[in-house]
Amino acid sequence: MSTFTLAQVAECNTTSSCWVIIRNKVYDVTDFIFNHPGGPQVIMDYAGKDATAAFVPIHPSDTLDKYLPCEKHLGTLDEASIRELRAANQSKGKSRDELRVEEAVKNKPPLGRMINIQDIEEIAKKILPYKAMAYYASAADDSISCVENARAFSRFFFRPRVMKAVSGVDPSTTMLGYKSSIPVYISGSALARLGHPLGEVNLTRAAYKSGILQMVSSNSSLSYAQIAAARGSSEQPLLFQLYKHKNDDIAARRIREVEELGYKAICLTVDALVPSNRELDTRASHYLEEYENEGKITRGNAADKSGDVSTLGTAGGLIVNNDLDMTWEKTIPWIRSVTKLPIVVKGIQCVADAVLAVEAGCEGIVLSNHGGRQLDYSLPPMEVLYKIRCERPDVFAKTEVYIDGGVRRGTDILKALCLGARMVGLGRAFLYAQSAYGEAGAIHLVRILEREIKFAMTSLGVRTIDQLAPELVERVDWQPLGSKL
Amino acid sequence: MSTFTLAQVAECNTTSSCWVIIRNKVYDVTDFIFNHPGGPQVIMDYAGKDATAAFVPIHPSDTLDKYLPCEKHLGTLDEASIRELRAANQSKGKSRDELRVEEAVKNKPPLGRMINIQDIEEIAKKILPYKAMAYYASAADDSISCVENARAFSRFFFRPRVMKAVSGVDPSTTMLGYKSSIPVYISGSALARLGHPLGEVNLTRAAYKSGILQMVSSNSSLSYAQIAAARGSSEQPLLFQLYKHKNDDIAARRIREVEELGYKAICLTVDALVPSNRELDTRASHYLEEYENEGKITRGNAADKSGDVSTLGTAGGLIVNNDLDMTWEKTIPWIRSVTKLPIVVKGIQCVADAVLAVEAGCEGIVLSNHGGRQLDYSLPPMEVLYKIRCERPDVFAKTEVYIDGGVRRGTDILKALCLGARMVGLGRAFLYAQSAYGEAGAIHLVRILEREIKFAMTSLGVRTIDQLAPELVERVDWQPLGSKL
Amino acid sequence: MSTFTLAQVAECNTTSSCWVIIRNKVYDVTDFIFNHPGGPQVIMDYAGKDATAAFVPIHPSDTLDKYLPCEKHLGTLDEASIRELRAANQSKGKSRDELRVEEAVKNKPPLGRMINIQDIEEIAKKILPYKAMAYYASAADDSISCVENARAFSRFFFRPRVMKAVSGVDPSTTMLGYKSSIPVYISGSALARLGHPLGEVNLTRAAYKSGILQMVSSNSSLSYAQIAAARGSSEQPLLFQLYKHKNDDIAARRIREVEELGYKAICLTVDALVPSNRELDTRASHYLEEYENEGKITRGNAADKSGDVSTLGTAGGLIVNNDLDMTWEKTIPWIRSVTKLPIVVKGIQCVADAVLAVEAGCEGIVLSNHGGRQLDYSLPPMEVLYKIRCERPDVFAKTEVYIDGGVRRGTDILKALCLGARMVGLGRAFLYAQSAYGEAGAIHLVRILEREIKFAMTSLGVRTIDQLAPELVERVDWQPLGSKL
Amino acid sequence: MSTFTLAQVAECNTTSSCWVIIRNKVYDVTDFIFNHPGGPQVIMDYAGKDATAAFVPIHPSDTLDKYLPCEKHLGTLDEASIRELRAANQSKGKSRDELRVEEAVKNKPPLGRMINIQDIEEIAKKILPYKAMAYYASAADDSISCVENARAFSRFFFRPRVMKAVSGVDPSTTMLGYKSSIPVYISGSALARLGHPLGEVNLTRAAYKSGILQMVSSNSSLSYAQIAAARGSSEQPLLFQLYKHKNDDIAARRIREVEELGYKAICLTVDALVPSNRELDTRASHYLEEYENEGKITRGNAADKSGDVSTLGTAGGLIVNNDLDMTWEKTIPWIRSVTKLPIVVKGIQCVADAVLAVEAGCEGIVLSNHGGRQLDYSLPPMEVLYKIRCERPDVFAKTEVYIDGGVRRGTDILKALCLGARMVGLGRAFLYAQSAYGEAGAIHLVRILEREIKFAMTSLGVRTIDQLAPELVERVDWQPLGSKL
Repeated sequence: MSTFTLAQVAECNTTSSCWVIIRNKVYDVTDFIFNHPGGPQVIMDYAGKDATAAFVPIHPSDTLDKYLPCEKHLGTLDEASIRELRAANQSKGKSRDELRVEEAVKNKPPLGRMINIQDIEEIAKKILPYKAMAYYASAADDSISCVENARAFSRFFFRPRVMKAVSGVDPSTTMLGYKSSIPVYISGSALARLGHPLGEVNLTRAAYKSGILQMVSSNSSLSYAQIAAARGSSEQPLLFQLYKHKNDDIAARRIREVEELGYKAICLTVDALVPSNRELDTRASHYLEEYENEGKITRGNAADKSGDVSTLGTAGGLIVNNDLDMTWEKTIPWIRSVTKLPIVVKGIQCVADAVLAVEAGCEGIVLSNHGGRQLDYSLPPMEVLYKIRCERPDVFAKTEVYIDGGVRRGTDILKALCLGARMVGLGRAFLYAQSAYGEAGAIHLVRILEREIKFAMTSLGVRTIDQLAPELVERVDWQPLGSKL
Repeated sequence: MSTFTLAQVAECNTTSSCWVIIRNKVYDVTDFIFNHPGGPQVIMDYAGKDATAAFVPIHPSDTLDKYLPCEKHLGTLDEASIRELRAANQSKGKSRDELRVEEAVKNKPPLGRMINIQDIEEIAKKILPYKAMAYYASAADDSISCVENARAFSRFFFRPRVMKAVSGVDPSTTMLGYKSSIPVYISGSALARLGHPLGEVNLTRAAYKSGILQMVSSNSSLSYAQIAAARGSSEQPLLFQLYKHKNDDIAARRIREVEELGYKAICLTVDALVPSNRELDTRASHYLEEYENEGKITRGNAADKSGDVSTLGTAGGLIVNNDLDMTWEKTIPWIRSVTKLPIVVKGIQCVADAVLAVEAGCEGIVLSNHGGRQLDYSLPPMEVLYKIRCERPDVFAKTEVYIDGGVRRGTDILKALCLGARMVGLGRAFLYAQSAYGEAGAIHLVRILEREIKFAMTSLGVRTIDQLAPELVERVDWQPLGSKL
Repeated sequence: MSTFTLAQVAECNTTSSCWVIIRNKVYDVTDFIFNHPGGPQVIMDYAGKDATAAFVPIHPSDTLDKYLPCEKHLGTLDEASIRELRAANQSKGKSRDELRVEEAVKNKPPLGRMINIQDIEEIAKKILPYKAMAYYASAADDSISCVENARAFSRFFFRPRVMKAVSGVDPSTTMLGYKSSIPVYISGSALARLGHPLGEVNLTRAAYKSGILQMVSSNSSLSYAQIAAARGSSEQPLLFQLYKHKNDDIAARRIREVEELGYKAICLTVDALVPSNRELDTRASHYLEEYENEGKITRGNAADKSGDVSTLGTAGGLIVNNDLDMTWEKTIPWIRSVTKLPIVVKGIQCVADAVLAVEAGCEGIVLSNHGGRQLDYSLPPMEVLYKIRCERPDVFAKTEVYIDGGVRRGTDILKALCLGARMVGLGRAFLYAQSAYGEAGAIHLVRILEREIKFAMTSLGVRTIDQLAPELVERVDWQPLGSKL
Repeated sequence: MSTFTLAQVAECNTTSSCWVIIRNKVYDVTDFIFNHPGGPQVIMDYAGKDATAAFVPIHPSDTLDKYLPCEKHLGTLDEASIRELRAANQSKGKSRDELRVEEAVKNKPPLGRMINIQDIEEIAKKILPYKAMAYYASAADDSISCVENARAFSRFFFRPRVMKAVSGVDPSTTMLGYKSSIPVYISGSALARLGHPLGEVNLTRAAYKSGILQMVSSNSSLSYAQIAAARGSSEQPLLFQLYKHKNDDIAARRIREVEELGYKAICLTVDALVPSNRELDTRASHYLEEYENEGKITRGNAADKSGDVSTLGTAGGLIVNNDLDMTWEKTIPWIRSVTKLPIVVKGIQCVADAVLAVEAGCEGIVLSNHGGRQLDYSLPPMEVLYKIRCERPDVFAKTEVYIDGGVRRGTDILKALCLGARMVGLGRAFLYAQSAYGEAGAIHLVRILEREIKFAMTSLGVRTIDQLAPELVERVDWQPLGSKL
């Protein structure tokens, strides 16, 4: 295998010849520059340089093998260059943001003091690097749907029943036939390693230990195989959240890969075909630049000058190459032709599409507006669920209905279940939990939800999940003041 | 009787042999550790030590006689040990919280400046020890139901009638046949002695002097007999709020005890069978720890480390051993078989259960969600009352309907009465009043309410309570801005 | 006439013998102590002393002649005592509140900078002595009705019509047949001299110069004769707001007095029979005491100690001796038997009573909840007006309907007129205007309203008042965010 | 041509002889004083003086030629006077407000950091002179309609459809037959040169480069000819916003002038016939006076003393001489008799008038309340649009319906289009964009909207504008909390 010096690499810093260093290895990415999902600029920022710190946390380890032909894996740095690079990294000193995070980690309270989801979110936001926080927390435009997702739950109150036998309350249920200890699953969400080195694996292990299910994102920061390998047993069910590539062959290859790895369902994402305007995420690099410069605005880069309006943050690099012309008639049968796994459509946002999904024979649907991260002013899933209950209750008998977005409390979950949802997904909450406390954080989160669910079931006069019924909730015509938001 | 030294007691500090000192007496509580309603950890914190300060304010004086066999009452400390203990307590110095309370008591305004309930609550919260305040003020989860209980009243406006003869307005009425000077009773609430050494007795005396009724909690901090003894005359009616023990014999014994003591009704609690998540209460010990350490987080105890999610504050030690399998069919007849007292069901939260209570022959029902302290998002009682008025007005003819939760003003009380309630209960308000000003405070509170009720009756064009009618109130479709919350 | 020394007066300081000095004259008020509308304590505070400063601003000059037999007008102070008293008053120094007012008056902006009612109110609140401000601004209990009175207007939006001929817009109208330049009258309100030495006379003169009508309160701080004498011509119409005394003879005398003085209508107050709980007013003396002591609480007076709940501020002394047993059947015919003046009933708060007033033959009704100063949660008049429009529009044809409470803008006035009101009354706004700027302030206020009304009429496509119609307004189902409150 | 000295001009400073200097030329404006649309006082402030700085930014360059007879163009200053004037202006020093603006301009972020309309507005408000900002930002009375215009959009949510073929989304449409790249036009708004020296020309150029249409205000600060000359090609369509003069001949002359210049439509303003109460604008001169004096109030001018209520800010000088007696019957046929251009009525505020406009044969209507700058509490255009959709959907087939007011996001625009609007106008947003960043700013604004519109179309499952349908939006019965306002 060839070795190179830093100087040799440094010469290849143009779009005609572009080399980068990742984990002391040298790659020729010239042909890939304009195919990079995250856009060419991000690569050119590291042309001829060490890209390790930027590359590692957001790419699964098999990325280079999968997407870069082996002849472009040129070789390694020589020993002297490796030493030089390490020394350079060490001498660089820490950024203000890194110092802030270090301080926050030092002051992190013990896990036992986290008594609700909100506690965990607050701590996580403090200990996350700013860019990671901005990616996790950001929502579309003015965050209306994101905020309303949570607020929708607060317009549903309970009509608890008393004098019911409730000893031995049991919150367990199933999803696509797989047992879950509580009616909650970990929803697919990208880039868990932005928050914790073990990333998605924290969640896989926590899911196993707490007896719940995990949906794995196409944009996970570990490879699908690494995640599958982290299962507690080969029986532990994983669901796969698919972003269908516009190229059917590539899409089919991905589906077959996860089926072979033992994943149990294909959850087709239909609400996030193009990158959205997530302003916290988009502004993150500007914010950081000013933060590191203690408030001074620099008037640097090209985008600033051109007035380009298309740069869209971390998320902009993930939602790419999707099939924009999927239809019920074409796409569902095509997936059936590729795999035997059950199909769940994730991102249903109105009654009419719930009905079409049933007619297309989907085994499940997720009422979701992508956590308010895509189209702002998309109706909150809880409102859509309520409409299905009022207008088309037959849907619940014909497919499994899940819901995600805005869930903060066990009571939120029970409200959704009373109206007909079978399971509730949480995404950001698990990202925050594993960011702040790793696997233990994710388990702790499940325990909190379990406690809240069991308490609320008892208080509603309900012993098992199937006793939850629409009559137990009421949509009120006022907005609670002390709402959690 | 035997005497012991501090050293002897100190040796018995394990779960195999656990002694504690209370009021200079020595008790062997080994067999009781795991039956303690408040959980074993609380006892083990004092194993081999003096537990007086922790035990006294929350246990009636007959607790040890009732629950600990006499052979476990080992004896007393010797004189030297008693002196040593007293000296140790004195030398300990005062905590920051105690000093804060002392200062607040010094600045407490005279009672005459309290012109409404809110005034009293604010002062009480200042002069209460933090833990007591947290127990009194706390509510479930996000305090939604607690806040909405009060806010529900603000959606009802009056249609006052003019040119009605109203001189000599009379706000008196009856509850279960017992006369009350105003349509208000003191609702059952636990642990009055957290706020004032005389605790529940302040309320009993104030009730007598102001001519209203008192409901005594199963979890009172004085014994039922002590409270009965504080009555102004043997005719003064007391009602008993029953938490039914899961063991029928124990439950029957408690009912018979209070019947013999002269209590006049059994108010069966049905909305608080298991401990709830009252976050202010749960966080109180963490808060205090940090407060005493001037903001520094210590990472102390076991629960913190294990990430245990079941520790639930002071309230967690009270709501225990309840019968989780009560039913209308079984439990009401069983109570009838034990006692001749009228039965009131406390904690009705929907129309359907109000109807079932009528069918079960209950003499009264309390529309209540436990002051928003149990299931968050349980409908506000005022909304449930309104629904009964709209959907099942026959209920009001068939049983007495009471309501508690969120009452702040005489106008709130009249709104409830217009819709069909017979009496309104206040719990926290009386706890705060007696905490801040003892018996005089509780009497003052009644006088404020009486003034407000009489003024509002006059202004509504109503001379007697029975003239209050649904036509005098109107549910509006907007939320007042200057709402008291 | 006898003369007395300060020492002689000082000896008569008990309830058995109580003398006071007012404007250097000596009065024996012993027999009057317990008949004093403002209660005995207020008099006893000045027993044997000079009461001038407390007495003058809130009593008309004929009070002593009217209510104290002439033999109790004992005489005057001797010259030396008069000098001594003046010197004592001068040497006393100014209170903090007086100094604050002086500074505020110095910084008062010129009248021309007041461009809306809110501007005037803000300045007036700054330059008023605290007690006067508290009396003017206070409202009942939690000020819900007071705030909602204004907010109710904000739920009505306009449907303006375009392409209508609107040149020469004319906002004039009539009230009980008397011409008014704009559809606004000065509503009866007590104690104008608390804010300005000329008090009600400022308003009478401004009404004349701006061509609008004035309603004079029974509790005016100038005598009815003084106010009548201030008219610009004997044709200037004054209306009289009657608080009917429980003694029919006294009441009849008062009615005949004003009829003889040339007042044009009797406006019978029916919504303020007993004193209400106006907390700002009630707390004013406590506030001032602390303010003068720079924040220190003193624990002074008897009421504080006894926990008396009946002390009710300045207002408590005004609303006294009213007839609590008025009825439609008895009282309206009785007034007719005493006077030929038209009868307006002020304080109608629901549709049913509007209908009864029509049936009783009243010439006019004022929809009013006394500016939110009496029963809190009484419906806003604008809502009552809307209900009459929806349920009983015949009322508008059968009597003149006026409305007061919460009016801040010309648009508010036009909304009321569109729904059927004939005139709109403003009380506090005129008190504030004359307090801050005297007669010119009150005229300026009319000019602002006239400008706003004319502009809005033009913009609505309306040339004359009678073209205003219900179709021009719409009650919306949302609450504007930027509401003026 | 004559020349004059400063001294000569200075002598002519009375209403009998009034000369002013503008751009070193001398004009006799004596006969014009009382015909000045902005009132005589503004002219007299500069009688005998140099009026250049006040005159230039708000008058088109042809104003003097058009309105002042050529014999009143007296001549120029002599060279010495010109030098003296220049020196005087330079030595005057900068005002606090000018210094504030200079600093703000220095800190202005690069255009590329503006990622939404709100960003641009915030920067523009910082860099604008206070008076310009106050004129642009001000709204009527309490700004209720202005705020609610924007807020109305937030009550409409989307029901996005998934699994629709959306590649190649196309947001282009037409207005009166003229192509537009996105369904947005620049609405007519006065005085663009208050914000930027190139004023309206920035907008004309930006419209050309981004392929959208511009409506030019009668009150533009450049002449209609100058604006026409700035077009990118003679085909670029300009629309003319007409304020119809009360004198038909003058009005006809104006219409013919713009028709000859190539303007493509007459947009008749019907919602702004008389000046309104825009308080920020009205208070601007007082604010500035205090600002320059560092907070001290001066009690200067005549208006202040007289308590005059008619002074109404910059806007007061613009909305003058309008025809107050326009009617559907008379005015539309009259315009037809003068011009062949299509007629759009701008300022429809209710369903009934939309129908009348259709019956009058108008080619288009603009639902508008003048950006909330005229009659406060006029219904938001989005609400009027929704009512037309519900009550008279035939209107959309019979005329083109546009809407302006409160638009902030691409989602707002799509909501309006779903309900039936053809185009959406933005006024203030373009003023702000060109004020802060000139032509590039206006283009950037279009690009932002284009990105937002295309993203939202894709997310709604819509490929072309004509696929937008009422079923895609839903009016919700709650108000989003995180609303942009």
